[in-house]
Amino acid sequence: MQNIKSYIDEHKQRFIDELIDLLKIPSISADSAYKKDVLNTADAIKVSLEKAGCDKVEICPTDGYPIVYGEKIIDINLPTVLVYGHYDVQPPDPLDLWNSPPFEPVIQNTDKHPEGAIFARGACDDKGQMYMHVKALEYMTNNNELPCNVKFMIEGEEEVGSANLGKFVAANREKLENDVILISDTGMIAKNVPSITTGLRGLSYVEVEVTGPNRDLHSGLYGGAVANPINVLTKMIASLHDENNHITIPGFYDKVENLSDEERAEMAKAPFSLDNYKKALDIDAVYGEEGYTTNERNSIRPTLDVNGIWGGYTGEGAKTVIASKAFAKISMRLVPNQDWEEITQLFKTHFESIAPDAVKVKVTPHHGGQGYVTPIDSTGYQAASKAYEETFGKTPIPQRSGGSIPIVSLFEQELKSKTILMGFGLDSDAIHSPNEHFGVWNYLKGIETIPWFYKYFTELKSAE
Amino acid sequence: MQNIKSYIDEHKQRFIDELIDLLKIPSISADSAYKKDVLNTADAIKVSLEKAGCDKVEICPTDGYPIVYGEKIIDINLPTVLVYGHYDVQPPDPLDLWNSPPFEPVIQNTDKHPEGAIFARGACDDKGQMYMHVKALEYMTNNNELPCNVKFMIEGEEEVGSANLGKFVAANREKLENDVILISDTGMIAKNVPSITTGLRGLSYVEVEVTGPNRDLHSGLYGGAVANPINVLTKMIASLHDENNHITIPGFYDKVENLSDEERAEMAKAPFSLDNYKKALDIDAVYGEEGYTTNERNSIRPTLDVNGIWGGYTGEGAKTVIASKAFAKISMRLVPNQDWEEITQLFKTHFESIAPDAVKVKVTPHHGGQGYVTPIDSTGYQAASKAYEETFGKTPIPQRSGGSIPIVSLFEQELKSKTILMGFGLDSDAIHSPNEHFGVWNYLKGIETIPWFYKYFTELKSAE
Repeated sequence: MQNIKSYIDEHKQRFIDELIDLLKIPSISADSAYKKDVLNTADAIKVSLEKAGCDKVEICPTDGYPIVYGEKIIDINLPTVLVYGHYDVQPPDPLDLWNSPPFEPVIQNTDKHPEGAIFARGACDDKGQMYMHVKALEYMTNNNELPCNVKFMIEGEEEVGSANLGKFVAANREKLENDVILISDTGMIAKNVPSITTGLRGLSYVEVEVTGPNRDLHSGLYGGAVANPINVLTKMIASLHDENNHITIPGFYDKVENLSDEERAEMAKAPFSLDNYKKALDIDAVYGEEGYTTNERNSIRPTLDVNGIWGGYTGEGAKTVIASKAFAKISMRLVPNQDWEEITQLFKTHFESIAPDAVKVKVTPHHGGQGYVTPIDSTGYQAASKAYEETFGKTPIPQRSGGSIPIVSLFEQELKSKTILMGFGLDSDAIHSPNEHFGVWNYLKGIETIPWFYKYFTELKSAE
Repeated sequence: MQNIKSYIDEHKQRFIDELIDLLKIPSISADSAYKKDVLNTADAIKVSLEKAGCDKVEICPTDGYPIVYGEKIIDINLPTVLVYGHYDVQPPDPLDLWNSPPFEPVIQNTDKHPEGAIFARGACDDKGQMYMHVKALEYMTNNNELPCNVKFMIEGEEEVGSANLGKFVAANREKLENDVILISDTGMIAKNVPSITTGLRGLSYVEVEVTGPNRDLHSGLYGGAVANPINVLTKMIASLHDENNHITIPGFYDKVENLSDEERAEMAKAPFSLDNYKKALDIDAVYGEEGYTTNERNSIRPTLDVNGIWGGYTGEGAKTVIASKAFAKISMRLVPNQDWEEITQLFKTHFESIAPDAVKVKVTPHHGGQGYVTPIDSTGYQAASKAYEETFGKTPIPQRSGGSIPIVSLFEQELKSKTILMGFGLDSDAIHSPNEHFGVWNYLKGIETIPWFYKYFTELKSAE
């Protein structure tokens, strides 16, 4: 791996240009208006994997968007690394908050990224982080330093719940057989504080609809006499948290794992400044479940957040109307041991039970996934830790993330292998937000670190 | 007035066609995109008043949309009736719930309107009811039966709060001098149960904005640790009503007039079927303030309704985001003696006070107006009552309406005269809703009844 630094220096402009080309395609899986762009992105991924050295690349159709599969098998007796990533992106709205168009990438310097950052939807989540693996493979093949077999599985439905990935994995166990799964779709604490994500939260995403009268009504003639679906929806949603911001759904916490004081003390060692956190978000106070720190609230504790709400007249000016319907999109982040389908059912049963007779309620489950924890004594974790030591000069910190990559627990169940989450983005990279970006330094550092993982994983695995 | 029936028979097709032409113009005052249409409607009203016999008609500019003023003075010693109406209409959305385009009027028969009803935005509120007065004037002038002086004041900002009407009235007291103000912008109980509206509710309309983090956030990385503005907004709105659906804003009820048991018993005499009411709205139960009947809840009691709410991701599919901002449009219907500006201030103070430190709240007052009550022993009420007896063959029932015509109390204050509310629409005409309509029978009955009001008002007034 000695030439990796010089190889990157030599090719970094091309690495950046290739990523920028990929970021120009608006592969928004949540909005069917972009179907063609999502499909074109899959084609682009196929070509890039072939160029990077895969022997066999195929676009595998699903009931939704296709999965791009690629592999380079050098010796069936050697270990195999399966790389997972996704080529779809979140919707970019609200568009007016972007400083530059989300699909016209620009490089700007920021305080956190003095070497420049690429601003575009998907720059970090996940096109940028996924493409590091493609370029790492290019390095290893071009320099005959690939120490083991590699397989790629890049999907196009991660941002909408990976509805078809499970079926694909179950139907292709042999093809996907591997010794470890490697994913870069998480973050690191700071550029000088490398970290490996060892825990992920699960997710249950639902949409609710409250119907009152069969048509919009004049709020003067009917106001006060009929249930206003918006007023009722606010009451129902408000009741889902008690005065301590504890979720009130019966049974919701039954399977939540409670960390020991030792584990919580260990977590608390991660560098964190509440003042900087508040300053970065321009808030006067944090807000959350009584009895837990900010870092615990967004990692080891489950949540219930309204992601969208709408109803009635939302246009310019005033309209004195009582809407017939009100809607909300609600997601719950879950912790290991909480089963997302069980939680979804608990939500549905409870939400329907708290509706007054004067309205009708419909709860539509959207998608979800289980939480996950990676043991730090696993071969994969050890190999990743040594790789960071090579390129960052320090041992990475194991970190629980509040995010969800639902398919990770699915992989373990179907493929019986552990997943290692090597993330190179920063929390401040604004993924899912306007002005998402990915540091050029982080991008290149990822490309530099990944080959070392292959080296150490192969060595440790052979020594087992 | 003996020829009125035959005159209407002879001209009814033209009366309908003229109204339909007026309804084709989308005079939506709330949406600036329709500015030209609103102005064109004012021109159309001017022409129609001239044709109906006004000696002098002018389009009076304001800081907003113009007020059309017209008059026919036959003898300054005779009484003067001032007719008020509005030529602007509510926004038509949601468009997809209309059975025919809102500005392409069609005539359809319905159970309640076997003689046909005109379906269009503004058909009843208020173009149709306002135009009855224009056609009544045409009859009286063409048949030399106008017994007194008449003035018209037709505005274009009623649906957005009549922001500029007050200034106009205050600046034109002499020009607008009158003995009674006549308005048709309310309803009647049923075609065989004529009624005169004696009470109106006041209105306070506000918009609220809750801001949490300075940007949209990933609900996984931040969920549980920062205040979600939508969750917070639902809690704040929910807290505005207690378990008895009593409004919790301190001081809100201080000036509310409590009707005597006798008055409530009198009100209860109006024919009303709760079953039909629920069936018409397709609801299993009514919902409102503990201790009051449906008819009391929507007339003599104040309300607080959310007219619109929005925030976060409301598009297709799912987005796991914590929005930076959440918004709501909230209106309060007020009863006589509640001062709308005082209530608006009480709301603002209270709403800001219940916001947690973790968010910032902005309350923007929109518009409002006072409630009103007409004494049934006034000359105007007596004249109206006799007019209904002539054309309906029965004495009308005095009725409190839940709606608001804020300018009515303003007229009394500035012009020192009482307003008579002769409404000919039905509650089922869906004003402010998709498929608004106005019965042809009601339209023609209004044109027939109004001249009788002029006759009896002039007689009673002269006898004073």
